[in-house]
Amino acid sequence: MSKGKVLLVLYEGGKHAEEQEKLLGCIENELGIRNFIEEQGYVLVTTIDKDPEPTSTVDRELKDAEIVITTPFFPAYISRNRITEAPNLKLCVTAGVGSDHLDLEAANERKITVTEVTGSNVVSVAEHVMATILVLIRNYNGGHQQAINGEWDIAGVAKNEYDLEDKIISTVGAGRIGYRVLERLVAFNPKKLLYYDYQELPAEAINRLNEASKLFNGRGDIVQRVEKLEDMVAQSDVVTINCPLHKDSRGLFNKSLFPT
Amino acid sequence: MSKGKVLLVLYEGGKHAEEQEKLLGCIENELGIRNFIEEQGYVLVTTIDKDPEPTSTVDRELKDAEIVITTPFFPAYISRNRITEAPNLKLCVTAGVGSDHLDLEAANERKITVTEVTGSNVVSVAEHVMATILVLIRNYNGGHQQAINGEWDIAGVAKNEYDLEDKIISTVGAGRIGYRVLERLVAFNPKKLLYYDYQELPAEAINRLNEASKLFNGRGDIVQRVEKLEDMVAQSDVVTINCPLHKDSRGLFNKSLFPT
Repeated sequence: MSKGKVLLVLYEGGKHAEEQEKLLGCIENELGIRNFIEEQGYVLVTTIDKDPEPTSTVDRELKDAEIVITTPFFPAYISRNRITEAPNLKLCVTAGVGSDHLDLEAANERKITVTEVTGSNVVSVAEHVMATILVLIRNYNGGHQQAINGEWDIAGVAKNEYDLEDKIISTVGAGRIGYRVLERLVAFNPKKLLYYDYQELPAEAINRLNEASKLFNGRGDIVQRVEKLEDMVAQSDVVTINCPLHKDSRGLFNKSLFPT
Repeated sequence: MSKGKVLLVLYEGGKHAEEQEKLLGCIENELGIRNFIEEQGYVLVTTIDKDPEPTSTVDRELKDAEIVITTPFFPAYISRNRITEAPNLKLCVTAGVGSDHLDLEAANERKITVTEVTGSNVVSVAEHVMATILVLIRNYNGGHQQAINGEWDIAGVAKNEYDLEDKIISTVGAGRIGYRVLERLVAFNPKKLLYYDYQELPAEAINRLNEASKLFNGRGDIVQRVEKLEDMVAQSDVVTINCPLHKDSRGLFNKSLFPT
């Protein structure tokens, strides 16, 4: 007699899963938790079939599940309807970070616990942010595409290529990810590092950035909090957004924010 | 009566030069030096026609030139033959860094001065190195190509994507560029930063990296010089080459260096 059902929604790994056994997030490897789930007396059902609602495997299997585990990059949207149709549902786990694919209000009404693995990917994301900042400001894509095409149009690349050094760089959100981005930016000798956040960074965190800046270029006051998003955008060369999507952040960046 | 001829070999900017007037390195903008050259009493001849030797405009115009100015990304090869055919040549300027497109031995025999703008692009190159390290280790190109193609094959990207954090990262050459790369790497919390160079980094430079590392992750001994290139490559996750091309560095990386 099973204690209940755990529904796991993951992407398909296919040949890539065969090549790389560390690829835990695909249906072939099931996050490496099948044995654990079964040892606890639960049944594990894994599927990639999440769309469309309400005729997918997720809809069918969720109806009598106790727990659903989803991921942010291959999201099964746990809507109000799906929650209503799943009377046994007690726990929604995001195997990763980000719960905007769940109807939090509906979950709250039913007292369903929603959890995510907070912090699990902050380094990866901060590195990705650094990669994309450098890619964009240095016009990497333009040069890379020329290399693929066998071209050598120097002017075509150079006209949109800039150094990150001596620029004003801003982050919306200075939490686990945004702060790590600021740390990684210091050695690039920015003119200024700005942040926009509902709370101030701890003095120790600001101090660390300024001390590092002192080491690299002798300037010890590079970090500055900005109260108004408009003021930050108006003076920035680079803006990176590192905050979750929720009702206050949705639509934060729009046409009216950018001077034409 | 002119004091002599300055031959300037640059790439063509075309429409890009019209769009971006700061694009100094193209024939349209002539490095911004036409007035200066002419005020000094010299004639300035600018061309893009550098190949093939010996029938190009460069061959024809170099014959009675005093000075030739070339660039590293659109190199006019100043060969022994071209030097022999240019009896008035006294000065070869690289408008940028890198003189491997000049026959230095032939220039030396004739006591021709060869100069470059040492240090002019060290920040740009260090940033480019950081961009390419992040692009490669994070499999940026794979993901970017999927985005262009409208694909979403998570496993196809993820299987070759890694964090830079906690990796052993090495530079061949710890000069103006290599050292700046090391500075920019510290905040990424590498396990170790190795360098291979004919001379040791100054104590102050090593100390700065270790102090920064202490600030970011509490570890104060991340930099290490390696005597044998083989030893460095064998233990490294990432190797970046930041040294000039000359007879000792040519062929430094070859098949036998990499364990199969």
